[in-house]
Amino acid sequence: MRIEAIAIGTELLTSARVDTNSVWIAQRLADLGLAFHRKSAVGDDREDLRGLFLEALERSELIICTGGLGPTFDDFTKELWAEVLNAPLVEHPDIRAQIEGFFRTRNRPCPPSNFKQALIPVGAEALSNPIGSAPGLLWENLPGYPDTRIVLFPGVPREMKRMWEDQVEPRLRALAGKPVHTLRLLVGSIGESALDERTAALREKHGGLDWSILASLGLVELVARSTDLEALAAAQSDYEAELGIDRICTGTGTLEATVLEQLNRRDQTLALAESMTGGRVAALLTGIPGSSKALVGGAVVYSALAKAELAGLAPDFIATHGTVSEPVTRALAEGMRVRLGADWAMAITGNAGPEEDKDGPAPAGTSFIAVAGPAGTQILNGFFPGERADVLLRSTHQALDFLRRCLLR
Amino acid sequence: MRIEAIAIGTELLTSARVDTNSVWIAQRLADLGLAFHRKSAVGDDREDLRGLFLEALERSELIICTGGLGPTFDDFTKELWAEVLNAPLVEHPDIRAQIEGFFRTRNRPCPPSNFKQALIPVGAEALSNPIGSAPGLLWENLPGYPDTRIVLFPGVPREMKRMWEDQVEPRLRALAGKPVHTLRLLVGSIGESALDERTAALREKHGGLDWSILASLGLVELVARSTDLEALAAAQSDYEAELGIDRICTGTGTLEATVLEQLNRRDQTLALAESMTGGRVAALLTGIPGSSKALVGGAVVYSALAKAELAGLAPDFIATHGTVSEPVTRALAEGMRVRLGADWAMAITGNAGPEEDKDGPAPAGTSFIAVAGPAGTQILNGFFPGERADVLLRSTHQALDFLRRCLLR
Repeated sequence: MRIEAIAIGTELLTSARVDTNSVWIAQRLADLGLAFHRKSAVGDDREDLRGLFLEALERSELIICTGGLGPTFDDFTKELWAEVLNAPLVEHPDIRAQIEGFFRTRNRPCPPSNFKQALIPVGAEALSNPIGSAPGLLWENLPGYPDTRIVLFPGVPREMKRMWEDQVEPRLRALAGKPVHTLRLLVGSIGESALDERTAALREKHGGLDWSILASLGLVELVARSTDLEALAAAQSDYEAELGIDRICTGTGTLEATVLEQLNRRDQTLALAESMTGGRVAALLTGIPGSSKALVGGAVVYSALAKAELAGLAPDFIATHGTVSEPVTRALAEGMRVRLGADWAMAITGNAGPEEDKDGPAPAGTSFIAVAGPAGTQILNGFFPGERADVLLRSTHQALDFLRRCLLR
Repeated sequence: MRIEAIAIGTELLTSARVDTNSVWIAQRLADLGLAFHRKSAVGDDREDLRGLFLEALERSELIICTGGLGPTFDDFTKELWAEVLNAPLVEHPDIRAQIEGFFRTRNRPCPPSNFKQALIPVGAEALSNPIGSAPGLLWENLPGYPDTRIVLFPGVPREMKRMWEDQVEPRLRALAGKPVHTLRLLVGSIGESALDERTAALREKHGGLDWSILASLGLVELVARSTDLEALAAAQSDYEAELGIDRICTGTGTLEATVLEQLNRRDQTLALAESMTGGRVAALLTGIPGSSKALVGGAVVYSALAKAELAGLAPDFIATHGTVSEPVTRALAEGMRVRLGADWAMAITGNAGPEEDKDGPAPAGTSFIAVAGPAGTQILNGFFPGERADVLLRSTHQALDFLRRCLLR
């Protein structure tokens, strides 16, 4: 089935927004053995939209549109599809009642503009929106396009996801082909082309699989897709043997979830002292439900005072060695480990740039990572060139991967 | 000029990646008074790619491709454009030398696969890549398409950005039309359609401007675009007067940058005690260069022990009131303010879900925000339904916006 995503909104052509809806839908499609062959984004421009709608009707069997169903002046996806399909719009009393109910339960007056959301094109089926005011739409058995389906979702991710799960996915399940399975290996602290070279022979050996390799901010993903589960299993064992400790996880996991699992498996706890990374390691870990079991807490020790007050360092000790130094980073980890009575503690100091460090020999991009554990403290000195945002995320990933390796030793 | 973005890579059609390159390019185009009319993403599929390349040649005057220039087996953007344009590939000695130099300066052996990156199609101009191994390509004065330009960039954002700034933007500047200026107002803690209703009359009054309204995780952007600076300035003063304290900032700013500016303007400092938001407020603030001036530091008080050790709360006090409660949140803010000697301190507790709170009446989505300042402590009790990730970000934004309002009072 040729499936196409169309994300609608001028903001998606500017720097103001990224279309994340189609990313989520892509995963749900993959689970059904389906995939997008194309994704497009167009603005709130009637001519561009009409042109793309007509193209899509010719090349795709399932057209999934998100956005432009809202109550505001720049929302007209539904009206335009109705035009393209010559379908008049008629008010749907149930939908109008739902919209009124939506505002009533929130004790908010219903802005009159919301009632345009109750207009449904003749021939389309309304998809109810239990958590928002904009209903979705579904066309099947289109005159002239019997094999084509069109689905319109609101652009609000929460609403789209709920409507997809309850009302659209069940129908697609019936149409889905043989499920395509994915083998994903997440690899830490090794470059993309180095990994490509290292696994070239294995890729040859498992050439029947559809491979891709993706690098991002210090992490690399090796992905193989196939309908043949046995072939994927054979590739998995070969790759896991080759990658060894460099492999973070196999499957859909993340680096932070892997670290939490390691701690939970040992029933051990973690404390953090983040200077350079400013809370990013904690934010990644706390994004995972149940992270409070292993994560006792942490400190964002962004000043000498915070390093003294929260991690117990002596101010003159910091002055002597400089903030971005091995001794201070080691002392932060060991101090926080004792302070929070944790089995493990990690500290990160560094200079994310853009300015060079004033009180020490720490060019922008330099970092020190200290992991204090039951058997002592290990140090990693990192360096990443680049923009502040990149340096911060790469250093965050490097720190979590270093912690993962320390936990495995 | 009709400008089209094409992002290449099967990963961009899966849940593994989002194309952020075109988002950055869109901003640079806007500064030149240019804009995308369409963005597409296609996979590493020669047929789909060839089809899109041919479409784009017909409808666009500038085609900007990112991705598929790497050394690995799934990179063939350059080869395919060469095919479409009937241009043979020839090795470019300078580029080969650059690639060898790139690896030499990093003391890494050059994988032979990288040399395919030195092949340049006849008729195309190589764009050198000072920070990576993949050169870009530029076609001008194409036989058959005299008014069409094609630019190929590597998919690595840092490399693409550097090459855009140094080698592509200067050429576009000459072609650019009258600059389009943008008025952007960022608004906090008010719903999209409520804001739409509230500003409907003003939008009428300033109907000559091209308006859009965008909501995301508790923040709303009002954006107007025009070549007429005076019209934008008139709209700005009307909107700022109407929005009052609900306006976070005007221009390209962010909520976190606005809060830091407020603190710097008063030469005051901030400390944080994050339970629910787990370091997200700190991560947003520390993303801004120079944030260490105002941000003394913070604690991720994810356990009762951390609340006691880092913010000085008595364990039985926490047990009495429950973690997610007004008294505990107030005590965290006031305790951290004293501990770090800051002018202001903010604490956030809550239950991000998915599970209900065990030790208190805190359904998933509940939050308490306390801001302790020179004139006392203010409390906000928030509630957001939804997924953990959304709840965490909405609560992070609500906390920063509450702090902003407290700073203005």
